[in-house]
Amino acid sequence: MTEVNWIGVDWGTSNLRAWGMGADNTVVAEARSDAGMGTLPPEGFEAALIDLVGGWLGAGAMDVVVCGMAGSRQGWAEAPYRAVPCAAKTDTLTQVQTSDPRLRVHIVPGVKQAQPADVMRGEETQIAGFLALNPKWDGVICLPGTHTKWALVSAEEIVSFQSFMTGEMFALLAKQSILRHTVAADGWDSGAFDEALDDSLANPARLAARLFSLRAEALLAELDGVTARSRLSGALIGVELAAARPYWLGQQVAVIGADALSDAYVAALSRQGVQVVQLDVDAMTRAGLAAAHENVGAVT
Amino acid sequence: MTEVNWIGVDWGTSNLRAWGMGADNTVVAEARSDAGMGTLPPEGFEAALIDLVGGWLGAGAMDVVVCGMAGSRQGWAEAPYRAVPCAAKTDTLTQVQTSDPRLRVHIVPGVKQAQPADVMRGEETQIAGFLALNPKWDGVICLPGTHTKWALVSAEEIVSFQSFMTGEMFALLAKQSILRHTVAADGWDSGAFDEALDDSLANPARLAARLFSLRAEALLAELDGVTARSRLSGALIGVELAAARPYWLGQQVAVIGADALSDAYVAALSRQGVQVVQLDVDAMTRAGLAAAHENVGAVT
Repeated sequence: MTEVNWIGVDWGTSNLRAWGMGADNTVVAEARSDAGMGTLPPEGFEAALIDLVGGWLGAGAMDVVVCGMAGSRQGWAEAPYRAVPCAAKTDTLTQVQTSDPRLRVHIVPGVKQAQPADVMRGEETQIAGFLALNPKWDGVICLPGTHTKWALVSAEEIVSFQSFMTGEMFALLAKQSILRHTVAADGWDSGAFDEALDDSLANPARLAARLFSLRAEALLAELDGVTARSRLSGALIGVELAAARPYWLGQQVAVIGADALSDAYVAALSRQGVQVVQLDVDAMTRAGLAAAHENVGAVT
Repeated sequence: MTEVNWIGVDWGTSNLRAWGMGADNTVVAEARSDAGMGTLPPEGFEAALIDLVGGWLGAGAMDVVVCGMAGSRQGWAEAPYRAVPCAAKTDTLTQVQTSDPRLRVHIVPGVKQAQPADVMRGEETQIAGFLALNPKWDGVICLPGTHTKWALVSAEEIVSFQSFMTGEMFALLAKQSILRHTVAADGWDSGAFDEALDDSLANPARLAARLFSLRAEALLAELDGVTARSRLSGALIGVELAAARPYWLGQQVAVIGADALSDAYVAALSRQGVQVVQLDVDAMTRAGLAAAHENVGAVT
């Protein structure tokens, strides 16, 4: 195995990804576990990390650059938020004391916004990675997820951003509401998605009525579960696009994500005539961690 | 105890209310249990009813008039929906065969609408009760609940109606989403409610962003839990009022419900200059069951 030069970590609420990086920032090793921030007390992070990447360490101290919820108040160590507008690339990493001398841990801070109140932890690293790979790019970055983020970037700064609970609402409605009997667990009907999206963009306020209507149509007209699922997604993303219009209208948009949810955003934006590029999350995260690691070198 | 002449039952998904009614339709006995439709197989309903009201029965057969989910396909016996437009008062009760000869059970049918697809079971009885007490009343009836209904009534008919999943969304978001740490279990701030209501009515599409903002404000500015709860309610009801505007604008509105949720709807509608009357659900249900019972007398 090529030697690991430093380690990049994306430590979320429910899981943990680690990449062993070569001196030229290529991936030479990769590991993941479900030891997410939400499962660990502050004193548990070091052991969880060693469990996962202990085999990559040598005799000397190795840099570990961490982004995500591990930097929250309930995480390993709090990395205070930077406030927008701020440089996409950070040079204010939070160092964590470890018992094991082979680790030199640095946590990337999240980003906050006072008005409207908003926060991100992890997505700022994906944005920094995208800008490291696309210097001078101005436009809007959309990061689909449980709490989808829209960020306006200009002159390599995050100017403003906005989070939407759309993904979490979809999961709650599909799995825990009365619609759980109506909505299929998977499957996709792009025509049903498009129709619901258009309807919702044109009249976003009708969301709660549209949702009940899915249930009623299942009772009265045997609405298909895949159609219901696609309509639910279209209705929710339509409301979000209606509100996020100031972000995407007349802009070039980079969607960071390659899963089914991101595909739905790309389809929805393309349908509005928006020029969209789609990028892999992990690649952007690693590029962002590498950009942060350059500063570690400068500081230590 | 004054003699029970007939029995009225509101049999919902999660509980069961029964009233022993005198010959003049006054309440002479009252009972409730948690043997809701959702907890019973079809063959369990008769025993559950006898458990609750057996003591009210005499030697002869007694009429029992039932509304609510007991009439659904998964209930005691399916009482097929009537389709709008239809008379508020029904004369098409579904009779149920019982083993116990002391029972003569009749189920009130629900009401359906083909386009947009919609259904109600139980609320039609409250509407019929309101119209029995207020003959010739034309206007809009709002029935707040898990799935709030808005119904246009004219010439003693239900002309059209629309259900909104607003109440269920509130419960899911307050108790099961990331906002569960942010939103208090009770308490009320009418100023915060009004502000969120106005904001949401003016720009309903921003719902999912407003929700995440509550979480962010709790992290960044120690947003109070009662304020968050009132804002969540105002934001959701504001979106509903924006969509239901064709129902309430320029209409007189009767809100059937006297709980905190109904109070919030009354406050929100009054704030829009709507003339609102507020009525007790149980009284409307009993009046609706009594109106249905008159037809039983005519049929048997």
